[in-house]
Amino acid sequence: MTTYTPPTRDMQFVLHDVLQVAKSDIPGYEELEPDFTAAVLEEAGKLAAEVLHPLNKVGDEEGCRLENGVVRTPTGFKAAYDQLREGGWNGLDCDPEYGGQGMPHLLGTAVGEMFVSANMAFNMYQGLTHGAVNALHAHGSEEQKATYLPKMIDGIWTGTMNLTEPQCGTDLGLIRTRAEPAEDGTYRITGQKIWISSGEHDLSENIIHLVLAKAPGGGPGTKGISLFIVPKFLVNPDGSLGERNAVTCGGLEEKMGIHGNATCVMNYDGATGYLVGELHQGLRYMFTMMNEARLGVGLQGYAQGVVAYQNALAFARERLQGRAVTGPANPEGPADPIIVHPDVRRMLMHQKSFVEGARALAFWGASLIDASRRKGDQEAEEMISLLIPVIKGFLTDKGFETTVLAQQTLGGSGYTKEWGLEQFVRDCRITMIYEGTNGIQALDLVGRKLGRNGGRAVLEFFEMVKRFIKENEGNEALKEGFLDPLKAASKDLQAAGMHFMQAGMKNPSDALAGAYDFMHLFGHVCLGLMWARMARAAMEGLEAEGADRAFLQAKITTGRYYMARQLPATKAHLARILAGGETVMELPAEAF
Amino acid sequence: MTTYTPPTRDMQFVLHDVLQVAKSDIPGYEELEPDFTAAVLEEAGKLAAEVLHPLNKVGDEEGCRLENGVVRTPTGFKAAYDQLREGGWNGLDCDPEYGGQGMPHLLGTAVGEMFVSANMAFNMYQGLTHGAVNALHAHGSEEQKATYLPKMIDGIWTGTMNLTEPQCGTDLGLIRTRAEPAEDGTYRITGQKIWISSGEHDLSENIIHLVLAKAPGGGPGTKGISLFIVPKFLVNPDGSLGERNAVTCGGLEEKMGIHGNATCVMNYDGATGYLVGELHQGLRYMFTMMNEARLGVGLQGYAQGVVAYQNALAFARERLQGRAVTGPANPEGPADPIIVHPDVRRMLMHQKSFVEGARALAFWGASLIDASRRKGDQEAEEMISLLIPVIKGFLTDKGFETTVLAQQTLGGSGYTKEWGLEQFVRDCRITMIYEGTNGIQALDLVGRKLGRNGGRAVLEFFEMVKRFIKENEGNEALKEGFLDPLKAASKDLQAAGMHFMQAGMKNPSDALAGAYDFMHLFGHVCLGLMWARMARAAMEGLEAEGADRAFLQAKITTGRYYMARQLPATKAHLARILAGGETVMELPAEAF
Repeated sequence: MTTYTPPTRDMQFVLHDVLQVAKSDIPGYEELEPDFTAAVLEEAGKLAAEVLHPLNKVGDEEGCRLENGVVRTPTGFKAAYDQLREGGWNGLDCDPEYGGQGMPHLLGTAVGEMFVSANMAFNMYQGLTHGAVNALHAHGSEEQKATYLPKMIDGIWTGTMNLTEPQCGTDLGLIRTRAEPAEDGTYRITGQKIWISSGEHDLSENIIHLVLAKAPGGGPGTKGISLFIVPKFLVNPDGSLGERNAVTCGGLEEKMGIHGNATCVMNYDGATGYLVGELHQGLRYMFTMMNEARLGVGLQGYAQGVVAYQNALAFARERLQGRAVTGPANPEGPADPIIVHPDVRRMLMHQKSFVEGARALAFWGASLIDASRRKGDQEAEEMISLLIPVIKGFLTDKGFETTVLAQQTLGGSGYTKEWGLEQFVRDCRITMIYEGTNGIQALDLVGRKLGRNGGRAVLEFFEMVKRFIKENEGNEALKEGFLDPLKAASKDLQAAGMHFMQAGMKNPSDALAGAYDFMHLFGHVCLGLMWARMARAAMEGLEAEGADRAFLQAKITTGRYYMARQLPATKAHLARILAGGETVMELPAEAF
Repeated sequence: MTTYTPPTRDMQFVLHDVLQVAKSDIPGYEELEPDFTAAVLEEAGKLAAEVLHPLNKVGDEEGCRLENGVVRTPTGFKAAYDQLREGGWNGLDCDPEYGGQGMPHLLGTAVGEMFVSANMAFNMYQGLTHGAVNALHAHGSEEQKATYLPKMIDGIWTGTMNLTEPQCGTDLGLIRTRAEPAEDGTYRITGQKIWISSGEHDLSENIIHLVLAKAPGGGPGTKGISLFIVPKFLVNPDGSLGERNAVTCGGLEEKMGIHGNATCVMNYDGATGYLVGELHQGLRYMFTMMNEARLGVGLQGYAQGVVAYQNALAFARERLQGRAVTGPANPEGPADPIIVHPDVRRMLMHQKSFVEGARALAFWGASLIDASRRKGDQEAEEMISLLIPVIKGFLTDKGFETTVLAQQTLGGSGYTKEWGLEQFVRDCRITMIYEGTNGIQALDLVGRKLGRNGGRAVLEFFEMVKRFIKENEGNEALKEGFLDPLKAASKDLQAAGMHFMQAGMKNPSDALAGAYDFMHLFGHVCLGLMWARMARAAMEGLEAEGADRAFLQAKITTGRYYMARQLPATKAHLARILAGGETVMELPAEAF
């Protein structure tokens, strides 16, 4: 049986020592005093550890069941959902005008990490609702917002996003679901959507589906795509539930993991739909939802790593096997705890240095979103837009790797269901796939984001790294362990970018064949920068009276591990990119 | 639903064009003419594809059931087992004196790859028997061999190996199972063993357990460990089955994968056991079994990669999504097959270049075993002993990575049970853990194998690489794409070895902290050498009249991919090793 310990102390360190949120000029951040965030995180952590985490295994084992069109969620999910809903957690960072608590997205991210670590499948019911709320908030009419947002933010209704169809995943131009205008201004939606997370369930009174469909007159490919609200139950003018709409769950997908979440085939048989925004602008609107969803998936990736690491660590401290090479560490016992062995430590340090670095990156990303939304900071908006594919792709690939390493730390026990580590691996695996596979993230990064506005955002990123190095160049304690490796890694990233500019002109396949490595290279430089910042903050913290020396020293040591032992991956990524795309593209498809 | 296509052509290429087996002076290899091996491989491939593979999903879904002490294997397993047994496949490379077919281990390896690709869980019933046969063949008395080997080689009886106990996995010194001598010269075995693959099942008439237990007088730790034969049914002097022995299956482990194989808790309650060889020499004997088992696990790792890759490739050729960046490849269709996209090709080339290189390494390893056993070649014995941890550790880590990449190639479909890719991931995952975790393999490599006989084997390995480069240095076609990167990678490996020699003297933790990276570095150099050899063979083959040009050219292109895009990983591994063990060991256990 696994356990979950809310990493409140680590979160507070990122919020206050590294990001120094309470000193920020982002509106709303003035509330984020250490005592306040500690109180929120402790309350959320308690729910995560005591209410959500015990249901993680239950959800995996029971899964969801479809009975006469109704999906039954696992035992305990409904009660837990109600408890969170009643506590106001669903609307933590939503608009107060519609009943939200108006907290910064950053705080929602910290709380979200805990909920996801504790029970990823459970949290998806609320998580997708949050994305749907954002899309409606940004693009819905006043009437639509008034009708749907308060109940979705409250959580008494939930939301979904409906993109995928059997013949169409990444390539949305192939969508076949049709929207026919009716005389009353509504639309009749007809088609089949698949892999709809939380598409049908028994947690909420109504489910508000946001559906991409082709309306007449938009032209071929993605051009005709529009976005529609299709509620499970139509809503009467007074807000009460009306008749059942013609949307039904046609089946549940059997999956590798996240069994606690219902992944549905949704059939729309002339269902009543309401156009969101303008006709034929659906794809653009959906991206509002998708961008936040991608950040949320990056968070899932490392959050599963967090809980997997915690359990691996607990095992490594308790399991007695063999003796330390430097002499018995537990001479009274039959053997030493395996944490004494260098290779076990390698695994633990790898996990620890990744998840703590990833948290800093995710929190920084959330603060950029707040700066963009709350302050209208254009530079922050461009930076987070650049970073989204990196956060999604890198944090999920590495998050998965972390769960696999955590499982490995337990040896044979890690492979058994009893110990629970294998569930983290299975659950985390989806994060590399959904909301755009990580290959798609890499293409988004290299094909779209990198060159946008003449490469302004990536140049600013390099400047940021340079500034940090320059600001701290007199800091001897930081130099060898942090600044030098960061500089080297950043140079690798620049060399890769330069190669794309030159080679990509001649041959677009070349840049695209290296895109995945570039995404990883970028991710490593981001985490290198995060660790350099954390190390500086920890060093400054150590100078204060009454400092938590063990905690801060551990941050520095963990950071030094990352810089020395994870960051060198940039060398291999760069070498692959410089090798070009020829060997990737040369083989004729029939010769594979 | 997955399919499996026996890679007969690729196997023939390794056997005849690369290893040139029929020209070898290893006794028995003279039989391995191309027509003969083709016939054997085709027959085995047919069984694998048509009999075993269709049961792969059945095994996963049904799993094994324990009912009143009897384990029921999945539907169809018994019939398939009988079919293979009757075909004589179990004893293909076993001693003819005991009913085996006396074929080289190399041929058994090729056939084994097919059976494992087709159905790994199924093949474990036979695979463990094979290991037990080897241990008895090497260390059993003439009477024991006469009693057990013919039936085990026939397959009408199966075998197991019993090492692990709840408190003792890697650290066998902690074994508690006791062996008390009885007056009749037998022993009474008492204790509990866990994670016993194929410990109880309904495929064979008898199960011959090889059990490690402590007999009186051996001293503490591993010293008192002896090896015992504990048959499920005692065997009468005439060879018929006698009374039921006091060994029972106490439960089945629920696992992440390989559900078709019964992983048992075995309880020994004063069971009758027969000492194998001398008292207190059990650990040494068990290693005979373990060495072959480790090679077999390395084979499992890449063999799962083979079948996963095949299914990813089929999907990539059929799934239509998006358009090639260089212009439509399928202008008549709604979209292009995804194999046109550079990042999909990156994934496919990665898989293909690994599995084909891995096969060459595994086959070469098997030929070293044959040279050692059949020719008494001491150098071959030392080389394979050095390579075993590399083959086990590297091929399973990378085999798992390959299954994950194959799954990723399918996008969302890869996560569903329907498409079957996720089973390969779950099944393959165990290979990184059992028969000694990959961390243990790395320690075995660096701590034991590297320095043995003054490092003779590793020096010979380096010489072999140098010789190959020197022999071919005039070959311009080979130079840039193969010899130069091989030389660079080999230098990285030598630099790492040198670092261990120097740093390891001062601080053993330093070398141990880098052991895992060293194992991977070594694995990459091995596959680099294999690809250089395969490329040379393909280039030579291209000069022959009537050459299969597309096949041979594909080998060269695939090899160039490996050298350009996988081999650069050595740079990152070397950097980590040179970074030393300080950041790995520095953090106090309580500060994690």
